Amino acid sequence: MDAERFFDELLSVRMNADRTAVDIIDQTLLPGTRKRICLSTREEIWEAIKKLRVRGAPAIGVCAACGIALLASKIEAADYAHFFEEFRKEKEYLASSRPTAVNLFWALNRMEDCVKKHEEMPLRELCELLFAEAERIREEDVQISRSIGEIGFRLLSELKQKGREIGILTHCNAGTLATAKYGTATAPMYVALEHGWAGQEIHVYCDETRPLLQGARLTALELHSAGIRTTLQCDNMASILMKSGKIDIVFVGCDRVAANGDAANKIGTSGVAILAKHYGIPFYVCAPSSTIDMRTPTGAEIPIEMRDPDEVTEMWYRERMAPDGVDVYNPAFDVTDHELITGIITEKGLCTAPYGAAFRQLGM
Amino acid sequence: MDAERFFDELLSVRMNADRTAVDIIDQTLLPGTRKRICLSTREEIWEAIKKLRVRGAPAIGVCAACGIALLASKIEAADYAHFFEEFRKEKEYLASSRPTAVNLFWALNRMEDCVKKHEEMPLRELCELLFAEAERIREEDVQISRSIGEIGFRLLSELKQKGREIGILTHCNAGTLATAKYGTATAPMYVALEHGWAGQEIHVYCDETRPLLQGARLTALELHSAGIRTTLQCDNMASILMKSGKIDIVFVGCDRVAANGDAANKIGTSGVAILAKHYGIPFYVCAPSSTIDMRTPTGAEIPIEMRDPDEVTEMWYRERMAPDGVDVYNPAFDVTDHELITGIITEKGLCTAPYGAAFRQLGM
Repeated sequence: MDAERFFDELLSVRMNADRTAVDIIDQTLLPGTRKRICLSTREEIWEAIKKLRVRGAPAIGVCAACGIALLASKIEAADYAHFFEEFRKEKEYLASSRPTAVNLFWALNRMEDCVKKHEEMPLRELCELLFAEAERIREEDVQISRSIGEIGFRLLSELKQKGREIGILTHCNAGTLATAKYGTATAPMYVALEHGWAGQEIHVYCDETRPLLQGARLTALELHSAGIRTTLQCDNMASILMKSGKIDIVFVGCDRVAANGDAANKIGTSGVAILAKHYGIPFYVCAPSSTIDMRTPTGAEIPIEMRDPDEVTEMWYRERMAPDGVDVYNPAFDVTDHELITGIITEKGLCTAPYGAAFRQLGM
Repeated sequence: MDAERFFDELLSVRMNADRTAVDIIDQTLLPGTRKRICLSTREEIWEAIKKLRVRGAPAIGVCAACGIALLASKIEAADYAHFFEEFRKEKEYLASSRPTAVNLFWALNRMEDCVKKHEEMPLRELCELLFAEAERIREEDVQISRSIGEIGFRLLSELKQKGREIGILTHCNAGTLATAKYGTATAPMYVALEHGWAGQEIHVYCDETRPLLQGARLTALELHSAGIRTTLQCDNMASILMKSGKIDIVFVGCDRVAANGDAANKIGTSGVAILAKHYGIPFYVCAPSSTIDMRTPTGAEIPIEMRDPDEVTEMWYRERMAPDGVDVYNPAFDVTDHELITGIITEKGLCTAPYGAAFRQLGM
């Protein structure tokens, strides 16, 4: 595989060359159609985030940062006060696209801080600075996931035995499509390729990840496109797969990690962790340090979003696939108890239990 | 709920009143359409088994028994030898419909034994006897699952606390649609209704059971129709559900139990068992004693059928929902280690570890 070409083809989000639009791959069309679209108006940017054309916390952050820089460059204002007022309107509008996406607010707030810090600067230069800040947010994400990937790659290297592929299980999509480049849970695999490993030296099993199938639609597509040996299975097949001895290590992403190491991630992750523990397989959470929330003592304090029952009951054969009126339990995330986690890989280092002390040691 | 009307409406298979056809509910149309169809020719019976219009080991057995009795009654033969020859042809034809369905052969062999034992009998009387034997197979299945249900009901009674519903998790469909009446894993719930419990005193959570969704399409339909409080969830939601404290007990069916208690059942069952053990929830396998195979020492000797990748990758939005060319892992069943099983409920009694001794005590 030509790694750079692969990353380029599936790149989640970037500013286009002449800075007239945010260029994204429309993830709602994957895996069937690879189509890049250009977002040049506020409505287009808002809609792309809202409708999950761009998804994954870091990718949303980069998209919002590029978007607000683009919209700021179009503001026609005589002075800073007027500019700031218009900037705030654009920011509030973009922030309303996905009210639960923490990275969206984080990126927009960081862009606003940049505006506030440079009140004295000519507006044209300030807009240049905003484009640069958006690019910095993107580059930082690339570096963070590369660092996570290096740590994960060391774990893979320790597992390597001559003539035997390393079996890896992952859940949902914490891949290149969700970030600026390497993903988090996929970073160890992509970094392995950059270190010269062949795609057939690792074998990644992707949980399809019901109900929205991010594993089947996105992770399997990414890894398969990158030339990595990839197998897709239904979520309920992980147990027998682990029992068969084919899985050496589990890497998952995370949405939020509590101070004690409890990790919230896509629904089903905690089940994978329990299976891994049962079968004696190491289970690693790949977590940018920004996801570690020291103000949340344990996973019990992390609220879990309950989603639309239709996600579970519809979308089959164009027909409803469950009886009318049946109650549906459809949590989007679950919390994996820290006791089930072998290690949490942040870009600053590998943390092991006790997690509170490990996090503090890394300056969280 | 009028229990008898419920069972009648969803009855998997019966001989029709004038014995001119086998009457089944077409399970391929569920849950959207409830349509009964009459199978009166050899081709219709074969096709219904082949295409899973009738499914579930006991239901297939009853369908084959009724079917061969019907076909035997249509044989025009001058003497026993000629009759037996024709009977054998019909039997071989029906047996070819689903080559992995053990109950299909079991029922057909039992019908053939009946023919062999009554060589001296006038053919008209022998055909009457075959109709009676088919009815006996059906009645025996009703009795077996009722006995399993009574034992399961006693477990539910022990869990009963005033003003609190009992939370039950089940996987796949081991229900009325799969058997002649009560199902196996569902028998405790239906027997509870017959004992006068209200449908709201129990709350059954149904794993949807990917890839073929028997839990969503069939189990949720059954229980919901019976007036039992029913919630559907994706397979990967079982962990957080158990963690929430809502599940008091797990009942699952089984395809085959080894002499040491290892139980093969629909893919995902072993994962449910590991989760139940982790959260300290009792996990019961409901097993007609015919499924206990004392000649198979452990689960490791039970071969697992690998099925078509299309089951996992297709059937979404009328579009393929995984990348072309990706490898798929699609085992149909898995084996639950006996150490994870709280008890195995057979119609002869409740077995607990050590299972070998318990099975022998019941005369297996």
